[in-house]
Amino acid sequence: MTVKTVSFAPDAPAPSPVLVENVAPAIDGGRYPVKREVGDVLTVSADIFREGHDKIAAVVKYRRWHDREWCEAEMRFVDNDRWEGSFVVDENTRYEFTVEAFPDNFETWRDEITKKLAAGLDVRLELQEGMLLLEDVLRRAGSDDAATVARAMEQSLPATTQARSLEFLLDPVVVDVAQRHCSRVAAVEFEPYRSVIVDRVRARFAAWYSMFPRSAGSQRGTSATFKDVGKHLPRLRDMGFDVLYFTPIHPIGKTNRKGKNNTLNPGPSDPGVPYAIGSEQGGHFSIEPSLGTIDDFRELLRSAEDHEMEIALDIALNASPDHPWATEHPEWFTIRPDGSIKYAENPPKKYEDIYPINFQSEDWQGLWNELKRMILFWVKNGVKTFRVDNPHTKPTAFWEWLISEVHRTNPEVIFLSEAFTRPKVMRTLAKAGFAQSYTYFTWRNFKQEIMEYASELTQSEMKEYFRGNLFTNTHDILPYILQEGGRPAFRSRFVLAATLSSVYGIYSGYELCENTAVAGKEEYLNSEKYEHKVWDWDRPGNIIDDITRLNQIRREHPALQEYDNLSFLQASSDSVICYIKSLPEQDSHVMVVVNLDPFQPHESTIEAPYHVLGIPPDAHIQATELFSNSTHIWQGTHQTVYLDPKENPANIFSLKVWQQKDYEEPCF
Amino acid sequence: MTVKTVSFAPDAPAPSPVLVENVAPAIDGGRYPVKREVGDVLTVSADIFREGHDKIAAVVKYRRWHDREWCEAEMRFVDNDRWEGSFVVDENTRYEFTVEAFPDNFETWRDEITKKLAAGLDVRLELQEGMLLLEDVLRRAGSDDAATVARAMEQSLPATTQARSLEFLLDPVVVDVAQRHCSRVAAVEFEPYRSVIVDRVRARFAAWYSMFPRSAGSQRGTSATFKDVGKHLPRLRDMGFDVLYFTPIHPIGKTNRKGKNNTLNPGPSDPGVPYAIGSEQGGHFSIEPSLGTIDDFRELLRSAEDHEMEIALDIALNASPDHPWATEHPEWFTIRPDGSIKYAENPPKKYEDIYPINFQSEDWQGLWNELKRMILFWVKNGVKTFRVDNPHTKPTAFWEWLISEVHRTNPEVIFLSEAFTRPKVMRTLAKAGFAQSYTYFTWRNFKQEIMEYASELTQSEMKEYFRGNLFTNTHDILPYILQEGGRPAFRSRFVLAATLSSVYGIYSGYELCENTAVAGKEEYLNSEKYEHKVWDWDRPGNIIDDITRLNQIRREHPALQEYDNLSFLQASSDSVICYIKSLPEQDSHVMVVVNLDPFQPHESTIEAPYHVLGIPPDAHIQATELFSNSTHIWQGTHQTVYLDPKENPANIFSLKVWQQKDYEEPCF
Repeated sequence: MTVKTVSFAPDAPAPSPVLVENVAPAIDGGRYPVKREVGDVLTVSADIFREGHDKIAAVVKYRRWHDREWCEAEMRFVDNDRWEGSFVVDENTRYEFTVEAFPDNFETWRDEITKKLAAGLDVRLELQEGMLLLEDVLRRAGSDDAATVARAMEQSLPATTQARSLEFLLDPVVVDVAQRHCSRVAAVEFEPYRSVIVDRVRARFAAWYSMFPRSAGSQRGTSATFKDVGKHLPRLRDMGFDVLYFTPIHPIGKTNRKGKNNTLNPGPSDPGVPYAIGSEQGGHFSIEPSLGTIDDFRELLRSAEDHEMEIALDIALNASPDHPWATEHPEWFTIRPDGSIKYAENPPKKYEDIYPINFQSEDWQGLWNELKRMILFWVKNGVKTFRVDNPHTKPTAFWEWLISEVHRTNPEVIFLSEAFTRPKVMRTLAKAGFAQSYTYFTWRNFKQEIMEYASELTQSEMKEYFRGNLFTNTHDILPYILQEGGRPAFRSRFVLAATLSSVYGIYSGYELCENTAVAGKEEYLNSEKYEHKVWDWDRPGNIIDDITRLNQIRREHPALQEYDNLSFLQASSDSVICYIKSLPEQDSHVMVVVNLDPFQPHESTIEAPYHVLGIPPDAHIQATELFSNSTHIWQGTHQTVYLDPKENPANIFSLKVWQQKDYEEPCF
Repeated sequence: MTVKTVSFAPDAPAPSPVLVENVAPAIDGGRYPVKREVGDVLTVSADIFREGHDKIAAVVKYRRWHDREWCEAEMRFVDNDRWEGSFVVDENTRYEFTVEAFPDNFETWRDEITKKLAAGLDVRLELQEGMLLLEDVLRRAGSDDAATVARAMEQSLPATTQARSLEFLLDPVVVDVAQRHCSRVAAVEFEPYRSVIVDRVRARFAAWYSMFPRSAGSQRGTSATFKDVGKHLPRLRDMGFDVLYFTPIHPIGKTNRKGKNNTLNPGPSDPGVPYAIGSEQGGHFSIEPSLGTIDDFRELLRSAEDHEMEIALDIALNASPDHPWATEHPEWFTIRPDGSIKYAENPPKKYEDIYPINFQSEDWQGLWNELKRMILFWVKNGVKTFRVDNPHTKPTAFWEWLISEVHRTNPEVIFLSEAFTRPKVMRTLAKAGFAQSYTYFTWRNFKQEIMEYASELTQSEMKEYFRGNLFTNTHDILPYILQEGGRPAFRSRFVLAATLSSVYGIYSGYELCENTAVAGKEEYLNSEKYEHKVWDWDRPGNIIDDITRLNQIRREHPALQEYDNLSFLQASSDSVICYIKSLPEQDSHVMVVVNLDPFQPHESTIEAPYHVLGIPPDAHIQATELFSNSTHIWQGTHQTVYLDPKENPANIFSLKVWQQKDYEEPCF
């Protein structure tokens, strides 16, 4: 305990004189891991210092979470007692890391003796001290290094002047050996260790398409099958989606089943809500028979892979009254005094078709392990991504355990948190291990609120652990701006989602500009949640061309594939938002300008990002608008755009510095 | 390790569903304690939440560092998942504290059943569930409380309506018992625990006077004695000082002794530098014979106490070559290859009169314990405050250990860190336990830099652990502004030091405006460090009246006794700085306006602090200038001051809201 006095064992070594503080990145003092993706460079920094003027050295230590041996990366002094070192996280796994710092006695000696010799002082004793330090190095060095040092020491001894003696001892190869074999006596290792979850790149860069698989057919009143879904794969691949997310595919309960538009008296052919999971045909391990078999599902997964997509499953951890668990494991639910299982409520509202699971059950270990077994069952069948329904109604401690257990054998698995709730609850789910999170983007429509929120997501500490997956809509949410703004709003909101974040999603029907709402609500009328639907996927007025083009732009421009590289730029109009995503190391710079008003055209002066490109304001920028494929030469920091929501609600510019090579000899 | 997967023991309880995060105040994630003073209210806050809608409750747990039993203070919900609770730190000791949070099942039940009853639902089962919850309460409640609850349950059962039944169970006294005996099953306790050092109030509020005791006499060329110092106590008490700090009082080494003005060839009567501690007459446990005996010193301590002052000793942990340790414990120093002890150096400079101690010595435990014994020796003799010389040249780990060891038996001891070095090093010494710290104030002369630095000290996270003791000058530092600005600068700098912080100090001679410098340096010519001095303590041009008056003002105005209550106000002139220290709970508001230019008068519009006083801008403020004792009525947010450095370089206003009582019936 920090407050207690320290008592030392009689033979304890002296506490290190070196201090290491504020090791970053870290979330909540190291309690939670940060996140990166395979191939990233993780830069670790820390305040490192000691008393007085003696020299110190430091390394970043890191290892994969199941390894015991540390790897090391050298740290270098930056400024104001801040040090920095980096390593590449080249494996899809978790790492832990920390900082070790120690006195660098050889460097202290080198500094002192060099200054003294320069001042003409007698350094006889100092040379002897150097010899002692090098003898110490010899004890740690391998045979080749030791030979180098021993030779230098032998040559130094008989030298005719002190300066000559020192020259041998400070030969660069000797210094190099001394640095590499610096004594770690009096080293200090920072605790608590930090950790990082290294996900697949797709955790950061992906376009999601959300759908009800049962709506993929063409026959009214019946469920589509996985085979029907298979026929859509070319269409979805061509639009440029990476992840195809299905609402739950399990058997649906019959007891208290809901009818069309959430009514309580369903007809005999009403299919029920896929979230009321479990019937006599099985629960979370089973497939709704009208969709097909597990073999059909496996076949679809394979086919999706052939189309360079993956399928994400929806995990809703609750049960219909007909779920096998309700009879086999009533102890996993809350039992009332009359022996009945407690159904979901938000008093006075009742949800009698849903039994919430009791995660604090007496048999919580049996329950938790069964849920883990269920996830791993689908993983074994080929699922690598899960969208988790309402994780904020289950204990965060459960998710932290579950995700970490799954990652132990399957680090490739990505979990998306579908939590629309209070900000700290959403953040903590991400800290606990969810790779991606739903956001408030769906309701942020105007300039200031979009700028603030997108900055919070991508520029604050949240960028270390929270990857906002920006959904334009979901099967539960048809936002007001899409209801009122129609096709222009569908187009501008799509550009925002697909460029503000590297990961975004739409719910099917968005490409058709479907916006028939329940009056006065942000919900779909005749929602797919309650009925079989059939769609005309080429419906007039669709925005499939926009979607296809922008997903192509995202793939061609690495700057759009990063999450935390967003900067807002000035735009004179309050209806026009302007920002740039920039990845200088790949010379990729994409500037986006969007008219946020779906009703009226707006003209705006916008700021050309000379400072982001690192060029003087008298340079020229070559700006290619990517929807229209028209190129402009920009001169000066202020440019003008005119965005008509009916024609072009947004411009996306790829920027290059105009690089004219002057002739070596003037030719004019 | 956070990165590892969790494995549960077979009989482990389920992890708590409640989350506690960001428990504040805390320094470096709880690694270091915060600081408070006896009598303060410590408010603890945290983010606390759980999944879903069930209710939770939380307490602050706290205990003195040697106690095992926790005390508890209830926490209440504030906003955005933030909770808060407080307790009074009423003892001069260290405390540790944390937050415990748990599901509040009774409150969850009360909320649900109330809503259901209001909606006209049948709550038969819910009443039974309430009974079960109260039976659980009975098991924890004391006999009186249990009787109350049991009676309510008995009355509830036969009641004629469900509403009536519920009324008995929700009787306020029953709810009170249920809340007080809420189940702690599934509680979570936050770790790591936080801690707080609760110092004496004098750690926060004190005026320091620094002096060489040997300069207190009247006879040229000889040392004054402790008896001579005693004669100055009335004068220093009358000026209003609280702490009288002596440069080291130990025997001074003879080997390589320095002469006047730091020369290397001292005369036989040159007394040497008090920091070259140790001679054949003893070391850190002894007193320089020319000052007197240990009995004289004890007598002086007592007399100081009678004058409501205390004496602070200077701790310089190094030794002259004549120090007893050099012969008795050469192993506590650094031994060179020829067997000699390494003297202090800053190559190519040599300090041959000083042996630095080697805190990493093989016998470091013997050494550290001896240093602790030395501090406790002086504590036993009555010293309660130490000014530590150059703590940044000794390991911080040593100070953390030493201060904590001393506080174990003597929590009243205050350590002042005399470190003028890099910011992070200074901060970490404070974190390690120093009650007060020297600052860069001595070199901050102009408006913007003073505002920034004073805000950093008193308004940033530093206020939690770093109490800046603002010294106008020290025996090592005669700042340029005092050399050039003369008496007006001495007056304005004094006002700044004594009002920007609740704790400040001057080095003797300041009251005389002594500013004879070594040419081109910020050092005193003919410094007391190297010679016996005699002063005329009533020298013309002195500023004793200013000092006396301002120390009196500080005592009369509680707002000036707090550290972290500083706000800057607008002043139109760049040469005029304006700020307020405010303590609303004691209706104490002191506004300070200083002309920072020692050469020219400046007029400035200043902002009357209506917002700080919490009154509308059409109210009136009664402002009494405390140097001149003249009262003004201010109307409106902009007032004008004229400050002439030769006359009044500063105004200090005590502010009151003008409170006119209107007659109950108009009389006009």
